[in-house]
Amino acid sequence: MDDQIRLRFGNAVRKLRMQKNISQEDFAYLCGLHRTYISDIELGKRNISLDNIEKIAEAFNISLADLFKEI
Amino acid sequence: MDDQIRLRFGNAVRKLRMQKNISQEDFAYLCGLHRTYISDIELGKRNISLDNIEKIAEAFNISLADLFKEI
Repeated sequence: MDDQIRLRFGNAVRKLRMQKNISQEDFAYLCGLHRTYISDIELGKRNISLDNIEKIAEAFNISLADLFKEI
Repeated sequence: MDDQIRLRFGNAVRKLRMQKNISQEDFAYLCGLHRTYISDIELGKRNISLDNIEKIAEAFNISLADLFKEI
C-alpha cells in the first residue's frame, strides 16, 4: 500500500516532467533538490515529505491539488 | 515557507476533522497514527510524509487531490 502511493506519486512526477520536456537534472535544479533524489522519487523509492512535495509542485508551477489529481 | 505549508496542511486536517465531529484521539485511531502526532500535524509542527498523508486522506475517505483542495 505504501509502496503503491510512492509509485503513483513518482509516475505522476515523471509524466509531468516529460510533458514539459525537462531532464531530471534540470528539474532537480528547479526544485532545489538533488538529481538522484528526483530519480528515486520517480522510481517510487522515497516517502517524500510535505516540504519537498511543495517544492515539486512549485517547480511544475501547479497547485498541490493539481499535482495530486495526476496520481 | 516550509512552516507555512505545514500549517496550511494542519489547518485543513483540523477543519475536516471538526466537520466530521471526530476527536483527535478517534481520528488518530482511524489513521493508525498516534494522537500526539495528529496534534502536531494540526499545529503545523510536522513535515508529514506521503505515506501518512495517504493515511489521513483514507481516514477522511477522500482522495489526496480533495484533501489538498482544502489547503
